[in-house]
Amino acid sequence: MFITFEGGEGAGKTTVLKLLHEEFENQGYDVLATREPGGIRISEKIRDVILDPVHREMDARTEALLYAAARRQHLTEKVIPALKEGKIVLCDRFVDSSLVYQGVGRGLGISEVMAINEFAIEEWMPDVTLFFDITPERGLARIDANDTREKNRLDLEDIDFHRKVYEAYLELVARYPDRVERIDADQSLEKVTEAARQALRRHTNRQ
Amino acid sequence: MFITFEGGEGAGKTTVLKLLHEEFENQGYDVLATREPGGIRISEKIRDVILDPVHREMDARTEALLYAAARRQHLTEKVIPALKEGKIVLCDRFVDSSLVYQGVGRGLGISEVMAINEFAIEEWMPDVTLFFDITPERGLARIDANDTREKNRLDLEDIDFHRKVYEAYLELVARYPDRVERIDADQSLEKVTEAARQALRRHTNRQ
Repeated sequence: MFITFEGGEGAGKTTVLKLLHEEFENQGYDVLATREPGGIRISEKIRDVILDPVHREMDARTEALLYAAARRQHLTEKVIPALKEGKIVLCDRFVDSSLVYQGVGRGLGISEVMAINEFAIEEWMPDVTLFFDITPERGLARIDANDTREKNRLDLEDIDFHRKVYEAYLELVARYPDRVERIDADQSLEKVTEAARQALRRHTNRQ
Repeated sequence: MFITFEGGEGAGKTTVLKLLHEEFENQGYDVLATREPGGIRISEKIRDVILDPVHREMDARTEALLYAAARRQHLTEKVIPALKEGKIVLCDRFVDSSLVYQGVGRGLGISEVMAINEFAIEEWMPDVTLFFDITPERGLARIDANDTREKNRLDLEDIDFHRKVYEAYLELVARYPDRVERIDADQSLEKVTEAARQALRRHTNRQ
């Protein structure tokens, strides 16, 4: 089972992923939790090129192709082997992040970005995707209050960009209703985690 | 006018490109001669990742996406501005190299590799492509006799790979007869250059 976690900054998806990871392991499942580039040598080098704040001249299509390349290598070296061993794979961001950040945020078009990602992913689409729904204003406020990370090139985008990304996620929920489960992320961590559990249960029962 | 130069190793295309560059300039044209990554910072960094001999784990689709990314950045920063200034652009290898090396050499399929390259190139396809036709056995023998370069990851591929690439070039000549001009490259430099001149004249007259 291949589960991906999506949403804007400050939606809490990474925290929920860790909690679910622990729960699945306590239930006796083999679990791989990962996030591109995920320690994969080639993917890490590609990501360094993408996120280097010096590269302000980077064209949006170059960026989208680099994300797809890093995704492909991480998928083949880490995700596919784990799925073949029967593990549950939890991946923090995947193809939908490219569809919203590059396809809509950068204005390249969802179908165009999907085309290069289909090349990268082939048949390995996620079985289910949890979308943690919080407005960018509320999400970014959480980050500002609570973030010790150094800001990277994407964090520095303005609020209009994050708003476009948010609207795009809502569009993906409508476009892929069988795969994408919407989670209300503007509530306590306990409630968000419980909503995620229920969504996974709902999804598994539907299969 | 956007002219690309294609062919296997040892076909002499780079030498002919230099000679034609000089001739065009002597005739008073503004000319840009280039070759990906062409000194473009981001493209150079991408190319370093592709060609690092240490990266033996690189997946063929990752490689194809990285070539498309490096192509896109070189195109937007260098080729498109020159074409917009009315220059003749001579480019040593371009999309056809990916179609043959990744599409056929690596077995990914010409159409699949064309899809990600269409994303990278948009409407900026070459006006004419000169294919320097020499069998891989003859081409590689020329390199062995005369090469001081350090061998990179691609040079180390075996003869079967180069033969598949050669057959693929012949397929592209058949597939794109309006764009690709075949040049017999298994003759003296003077004759190859003259054949290239005639092909360009033929092509210009057809427009």
